[in-house]
Amino acid sequence: MVIELDRDRFIETMEEQAQIGATENNGLHRLTLSDEDKEIRDWFYDQMEAEGLDIRIDEFGNMFGRREGSDSEKGALLIGSHLDSQPYGGIYDGALGVIGALEFIRTLNDEGIQTKHPIEIVNWTNEEGSRYQPAMQGSGVWAGVHDIDNEYKKTDEEGNQFENELERIGYKGEVPAEPTENYEGYLELHIEQGPYLAEQEKDVGIVSGIVGFTWGAITYYGEADHTGPTPMRYRNDALVGAADVITQIRRIPSMLGERTVGSTGYVDAQPNSINTIPGEVTFTWGFRDPDDEVVQEAFDRVLFEAEAAADREGLDWEWEERMRASSVDFAQNNVEAISRAADKLGYDAMKIFSGAGHDATHTADIMDTAMVFAVSENGKSHTEEEFTSWDHCYKAANTLASAGLDLAQEMEVES
Amino acid sequence: MVIELDRDRFIETMEEQAQIGATENNGLHRLTLSDEDKEIRDWFYDQMEAEGLDIRIDEFGNMFGRREGSDSEKGALLIGSHLDSQPYGGIYDGALGVIGALEFIRTLNDEGIQTKHPIEIVNWTNEEGSRYQPAMQGSGVWAGVHDIDNEYKKTDEEGNQFENELERIGYKGEVPAEPTENYEGYLELHIEQGPYLAEQEKDVGIVSGIVGFTWGAITYYGEADHTGPTPMRYRNDALVGAADVITQIRRIPSMLGERTVGSTGYVDAQPNSINTIPGEVTFTWGFRDPDDEVVQEAFDRVLFEAEAAADREGLDWEWEERMRASSVDFAQNNVEAISRAADKLGYDAMKIFSGAGHDATHTADIMDTAMVFAVSENGKSHTEEEFTSWDHCYKAANTLASAGLDLAQEMEVES
Repeated sequence: MVIELDRDRFIETMEEQAQIGATENNGLHRLTLSDEDKEIRDWFYDQMEAEGLDIRIDEFGNMFGRREGSDSEKGALLIGSHLDSQPYGGIYDGALGVIGALEFIRTLNDEGIQTKHPIEIVNWTNEEGSRYQPAMQGSGVWAGVHDIDNEYKKTDEEGNQFENELERIGYKGEVPAEPTENYEGYLELHIEQGPYLAEQEKDVGIVSGIVGFTWGAITYYGEADHTGPTPMRYRNDALVGAADVITQIRRIPSMLGERTVGSTGYVDAQPNSINTIPGEVTFTWGFRDPDDEVVQEAFDRVLFEAEAAADREGLDWEWEERMRASSVDFAQNNVEAISRAADKLGYDAMKIFSGAGHDATHTADIMDTAMVFAVSENGKSHTEEEFTSWDHCYKAANTLASAGLDLAQEMEVES
Repeated sequence: MVIELDRDRFIETMEEQAQIGATENNGLHRLTLSDEDKEIRDWFYDQMEAEGLDIRIDEFGNMFGRREGSDSEKGALLIGSHLDSQPYGGIYDGALGVIGALEFIRTLNDEGIQTKHPIEIVNWTNEEGSRYQPAMQGSGVWAGVHDIDNEYKKTDEEGNQFENELERIGYKGEVPAEPTENYEGYLELHIEQGPYLAEQEKDVGIVSGIVGFTWGAITYYGEADHTGPTPMRYRNDALVGAADVITQIRRIPSMLGERTVGSTGYVDAQPNSINTIPGEVTFTWGFRDPDDEVVQEAFDRVLFEAEAAADREGLDWEWEERMRASSVDFAQNNVEAISRAADKLGYDAMKIFSGAGHDATHTADIMDTAMVFAVSENGKSHTEEEFTSWDHCYKAANTLASAGLDLAQEMEVES
């Protein structure tokens, strides 16, 4: 069986959530634990309550709403995403997955559908990682990847501690931030954030996994000196070394896989004065690929290039890998449920690997997980220009709901 | 005739000045208009007073001490440099030129030497340009290059206005900041700040001019986007463009002259996050050469490379030239006086172009100017590692004094 949501109500609900933290340019500025986050959480709480869900807020602010199944022995199907946004981000990233889950519940209630498995919908705390690091913090704590006391102590740029801000907005709950229920699996709907589905003119994406990645930083130590009287041959210019490697980081992916990406997002030069040769420069690398061996190869190559550049410019250097994540392969069972749902709905779907991490990264550690991707029309995200048509949002949400119904095992329909 | 300074007293005086604003690592932190600057000015005032000089402080804090000549029709020979330092700079940069001038006066007094021309010694305000921009500010105002009211309004990083700070330390004088006397010429002793004299194992440098330069900035505009799901072929990475040009700025001098230098001292990437492709990057260029046509060629080439890099990466861009200075050729007459002095003192001297700007840049606009360079043993400056042996300091100071005596026209000697 497939299920189709109320298209108008779905769109209205998407538009309604987008008003909380709306920016002038039709984007969203709804940073985690901000006043806007409190407001969207209060709104979401009310929506869940209106649907008769059994609501739990855990110690880390993750919000769950439970709809019981007919078989109390069965594990729950968890469905959700996040309601926080990037600074001046888009209205779809995260929100689409939560609203999709909510509309699924509303439709089950409207149509009086009873499922064998319980269904829970979830809003994870701080997926974006812009105000507090790391990203996917709430799901990471919940899945046991991060220590909660450690995460409570994190501070934002103004020095506000996470735990204090969580209490301030009234979302430090009583329930332990861990799987307190028995779970059968997890589904998450999210925008693609890349151009592949749009390029192929697909209706929806069936996400079969998440790329692995390596993040790290290199620091070069040269000689800060006057830019005038110092002959070129005397110079040990830390920024020249960094520039050398940054251009290599642009090239390395082209020597590896067709899905390999790499970039330098951060650079800091010291003393950073027009009239002084930079004596110390720190810059980052980031490489991703669906294949962990390719990620390792990119890592090996950037260090090889960094050493060569240091030798060329006469620099001392050091490096640190800040994060390494293996690629995630989603559960066959859930991927197939999504594939069947898209097929029955008559949508042109394709399998795709996610190029970004999601809360599903962490749930995949402890339960069967898969994701649905909605088409990003321009491939952009984390910007106000992020855009997915209502038609694509709706198709992806129907796919999520139908796969959810499949996995939660529908019992009967009253129409 | 040549004149030789009292070696012990000269070294003691150099050591004495180096105590005011001394750093733990034997350097100097004596920023312009700071309490340390007030202290060294008070000390210098006392020294000039003790030598019977007629002291003038001008409205911009430049300090002059005049020793009359025998012929009141003759223009004065001006000799000096600056007593302010870079943040955590060295004890020789600037101070050597002022102490050399002071010791010259002391020796003239000790030996009862009468010169035909008056001699003035000077401590210029804010040569370094680290607390208030631009560098060579006091001599620039005095020479009419900068408008004094404009410079008064400049603020430091804490928002302290120049004029207020000048008044606070008690050095806003009554005399107009302009040549109120008739001048014959200017001499300045300074450390080389480069390695050429040390490489050639010379005793002293005869500076025949100052290189010209171009300073400017390029800004690239790309697309800030998620570093994960964005395929390489979709990227317009502003930092990759900048890195491309920074490596070219390292190469351009090698295609031009043997004295051409070029570097990027400053880079700013936005949003500067490990997980976002840099959407906007500003970075600077700086090129210097004794030949203005070579400077122009470097300027043309950096813009050519910037356009090519923008095309390669698909970036919008803009540029601005922030400063262009023509090279300065010092007056034959003064250069020859220095050359004769070194020769008579038995020093192995060589002619050299200054790779950095000095107060002499501005005096050269309005009077015959030349400089003496002391050997920088390691070529370093603007750092606590700056080092010139007392022997090299002494030889350079003797050269300055003897050239000064030559130009001021000695009348008689009582020994």
